[in-house]
Amino acid sequence: MPRSVAAHRQAVAELLTAVTARKATLRVPLMDALGKALAVDLHAPLSLPPFANSQMDGFAVRSADIPDGGAKLCVAAPVPAGAAPAALEAGHAAPIMTGAMMPEGADAVVPIEKATPGTFPDPGALDAEVELPVVEPGTYVRHPGSDIEKGALALAAGTVLGPSQLGLLAALGLGDVEIREPLRVLLITTGDEVQEPGTELAAGKIYDSNGTLLEAAMRQAGLEVVRTGISDDQPAALLAVLQHHVGDSDGNGGGDNPVDVIVTTGGVSKGAYEVVRLAMAEQPVEFLHVAMQPGGPQGLGAFNGIPFIGFPGNPVSCLVSFEMFLRPALSHVAGAPSPRSVLRARLAAPLTSPQGKHQVRRGTVADGVVRMEGGAGSHLVHALARANALVQIPADVTELAEGDEVEVWML
Amino acid sequence: MPRSVAAHRQAVAELLTAVTARKATLRVPLMDALGKALAVDLHAPLSLPPFANSQMDGFAVRSADIPDGGAKLCVAAPVPAGAAPAALEAGHAAPIMTGAMMPEGADAVVPIEKATPGTFPDPGALDAEVELPVVEPGTYVRHPGSDIEKGALALAAGTVLGPSQLGLLAALGLGDVEIREPLRVLLITTGDEVQEPGTELAAGKIYDSNGTLLEAAMRQAGLEVVRTGISDDQPAALLAVLQHHVGDSDGNGGGDNPVDVIVTTGGVSKGAYEVVRLAMAEQPVEFLHVAMQPGGPQGLGAFNGIPFIGFPGNPVSCLVSFEMFLRPALSHVAGAPSPRSVLRARLAAPLTSPQGKHQVRRGTVADGVVRMEGGAGSHLVHALARANALVQIPADVTELAEGDEVEVWML
Repeated sequence: MPRSVAAHRQAVAELLTAVTARKATLRVPLMDALGKALAVDLHAPLSLPPFANSQMDGFAVRSADIPDGGAKLCVAAPVPAGAAPAALEAGHAAPIMTGAMMPEGADAVVPIEKATPGTFPDPGALDAEVELPVVEPGTYVRHPGSDIEKGALALAAGTVLGPSQLGLLAALGLGDVEIREPLRVLLITTGDEVQEPGTELAAGKIYDSNGTLLEAAMRQAGLEVVRTGISDDQPAALLAVLQHHVGDSDGNGGGDNPVDVIVTTGGVSKGAYEVVRLAMAEQPVEFLHVAMQPGGPQGLGAFNGIPFIGFPGNPVSCLVSFEMFLRPALSHVAGAPSPRSVLRARLAAPLTSPQGKHQVRRGTVADGVVRMEGGAGSHLVHALARANALVQIPADVTELAEGDEVEVWML
Repeated sequence: MPRSVAAHRQAVAELLTAVTARKATLRVPLMDALGKALAVDLHAPLSLPPFANSQMDGFAVRSADIPDGGAKLCVAAPVPAGAAPAALEAGHAAPIMTGAMMPEGADAVVPIEKATPGTFPDPGALDAEVELPVVEPGTYVRHPGSDIEKGALALAAGTVLGPSQLGLLAALGLGDVEIREPLRVLLITTGDEVQEPGTELAAGKIYDSNGTLLEAAMRQAGLEVVRTGISDDQPAALLAVLQHHVGDSDGNGGGDNPVDVIVTTGGVSKGAYEVVRLAMAEQPVEFLHVAMQPGGPQGLGAFNGIPFIGFPGNPVSCLVSFEMFLRPALSHVAGAPSPRSVLRARLAAPLTSPQGKHQVRRGTVADGVVRMEGGAGSHLVHALARANALVQIPADVTELAEGDEVEVWML
């Protein structure tokens, strides 16, 4: 009985929960935290705005000074942004710039366009006067704490720190921030048939695209990636690579900077030379079939105590496995990366899908309509490179008509 | 008469076109190209797949050998993935693994599940036979070039290189790729009222969030950013910073690695101390008003020959200006970054918007419904940090009801 997509995603998330809990936190300068997850709840060390300030270029006034018909007031010293102004005397109006601190006593701002004359007097002018219309208290004043009050929750632990979130931390006066240390992934592509790009291709061989594709996807998701190069179909060779990076079953070896998770590609299905299955024979690793196409064959468990995830060997299967299982699990347990945007789009053409398998097709979404890129085949990496979305066809759906709505995940 | 959003976006794109055309291209390893734009059209140096291969674990056969009722065939030497197999003799069936090269003469694959017996004979077994059902020519064979033919366009110039695109380049055997050299931006925040985060806040001052917010947004968009720190409201001081980085009007100075674009924040509106306006008085820079809220006041032109863009001084205005003008112009003229996903969502609550101004509100989109985060105020950086989308209210719309559809740009 194959496992459902949701059940396998949950299993991957459980595998990562323990790893994430063990990871340390790091305090880094704001710009180094871009795309990372905040480690702790962060409360505002000050209110924003920190003080009452003007929303307009105009005149700061005591609103009680101006009756319904308007009033002529004496012009006080101007208040530029950044200044700490003197208190406003009764019967006076202080020229004030946007963002400048309201003088004590002032409770409203009349915009310069509503003043007569409609320009500021020269800074040196003596005994200048200005005629202003009536104004409600609070008009064009930004009150302290109206964006956030001192002590309130500014950002919750797990928040992904993008430009706006880092901008908020800067506005709060913080120069650095505590983030979760990224997970280190050991990424091993396997197979006698795969060769490194940049070499001469031998008969029967193909170039390894899984390593590049997954390393790029993992880096975009905020993971650190350790690449080993390609391991061939000899279990002993794969075991040697694993032990070199992870250490033996007694915890010896493995270097100073151990990996947190192992991800392999290939060698997990039911053929005659499944190197990952063979290498993991004495480890607590389950090889199973998820009711999904592509990406059905999956491995999950631990190698010498380090969490292990085995993806199948085709590039499209690798990307789909990453997007369906590992990326959502990371969002779930670590906060980063942000989950994919999930939308609904109408099919440009009818399609069929096998009963009992959740099919993940590749498509291009534009103007609410999704067109398939290539067929269902998991080797179609050129078609994948044209797609901007994964199209989700649930396991119990076998046929859809043109115009039917489907769920799409934007890549 | 304020300029429309579309006209100003076009003006920014025109400013950048000349810069982009001057930039060199760079050949970099695949992983260094992540998120960058391909510099040239790239044609496939080989077909994918490079050779006919099996889509299943099974038996490669000559389909003509099997009549309607099925046939018993002699088992040939197995073909693992990565091998260059001998030609298939008539009357024989070769065990073949997924992805392995089809032997010459074979034209179809019968999956192992349909064979009797349903398991592969031991590799050493002599005179083994297998009973197989009739099969159409081409069944479970992946034909060479079925994903892409040698010489065909693999990726067009300007394509943003994400995991799938880099995976395709690797599958095509390429170890490096030619990308467009990123633009270098000189980013200067201005204002007497702003202070660096991490210092003690003086009365009337606020912390600079624009620098952090814009540097992060620019870096995510693939730009290189040179930060100068905060320039105060003295035009002479700003001019000194500009000349230090850009050189004088005769093209002298400015260092070995000149910047391509200058972006400032603040000092572009109509107040009494607009430092950017004052500093640019003798330069071909236009200060204008775009019919947009927030982010209406904008500057555009050149300083000593280097393209110049002046954003307003509030953090929300800065982000909106970047997303509405600079980021789309970069996508348009340079390919990268990818444009924002544009969706439609239903309003969770009614709203009003000023006549004649394109309003850009911040919102949270979930399940096709958008809720506003904070009011229209451009100083609300905490509200901005909660939002995941920009909500676009066109200039001629003044009122919308709950449930009305609006365009949203996912951040």
